[in-house]
Amino acid sequence: MKSRILSVALPGIILLALILWPEQQGSGQSASPDDAAPATVTAILNEQQAAWNRGDVEGFMKGYWNSTEVTFAGSSGITRGWQPVLARYRKNYPDQQAMGQLDFSELDVHPLGKDAALVLGRWHLQRSSGELGGIFTLVFQRFPEGWRIIHDHTSLDAKKP
Amino acid sequence: MKSRILSVALPGIILLALILWPEQQGSGQSASPDDAAPATVTAILNEQQAAWNRGDVEGFMKGYWNSTEVTFAGSSGITRGWQPVLARYRKNYPDQQAMGQLDFSELDVHPLGKDAALVLGRWHLQRSSGELGGIFTLVFQRFPEGWRIIHDHTSLDAKKP
Repeated sequence: MKSRILSVALPGIILLALILWPEQQGSGQSASPDDAAPATVTAILNEQQAAWNRGDVEGFMKGYWNSTEVTFAGSSGITRGWQPVLARYRKNYPDQQAMGQLDFSELDVHPLGKDAALVLGRWHLQRSSGELGGIFTLVFQRFPEGWRIIHDHTSLDAKKP
Repeated sequence: MKSRILSVALPGIILLALILWPEQQGSGQSASPDDAAPATVTAILNEQQAAWNRGDVEGFMKGYWNSTEVTFAGSSGITRGWQPVLARYRKNYPDQQAMGQLDFSELDVHPLGKDAALVLGRWHLQRSSGELGGIFTLVFQRFPEGWRIIHDHTSLDAKKP
């Protein structure tokens, strides 16, 4: 009985296996992360840095998920939503002089499955009113429109004693 | 030809579909995130809080991925590796009095696919030497041994002026 089921089923199994093979390869717990994610994420951060350095806060904000659920965490607590995050940047950096020259460095991209990535890095602001710097944690998620930051936790370096 | 392939293949397709069905349901880009993740992650944070509050730093550290790649980001930069993260906690909180009573609140668990989750929350330390508090970003990943923190970014609330 077992071998009869197999002889009837085998051609179908092979056919279906061929149909499903490409999908199986890219799905499930054992999926290898998308190799393109680190490059794409790094390119977005480069675009953000360039936008900031020409005083274009809205351009900088293109890296963030345009949603009421996007979050920014800092020493003043958690800001929720794309518009409030933009408003926070505008308040803290009202003009190009306050914005200064931004530099991201020590980027470390850690894929989380196929559609998300954790990014650690350093930020540094060079400006006449005083330098600032620290570290950040970004969580990127892949959307139909591309990879976007869904959460940003940015902190300032502790003052040297 | 087409209908002949189908008639031979159909029993096998049905059989294979039945075999693969449960796996298909939980995999792929369109998979709904594991419903259990928020509950599991919250349970781990409750265990961490309880361990901290009995002065058990090693017990607290069980929530972290036991790897040289686990990362802790704070105002003193990035600490990399389970042992260095433990050493950092031991240095900053040398005894139970310095550890005080820890309270996590406002937990927000955001699944990232099936095997990762982003968690935001507040921490607060009640202690005789002075209260401390702030926010944290945790990234959890699912391992064969369970869900573990792979990255922790913790910041202190800004001092009120």
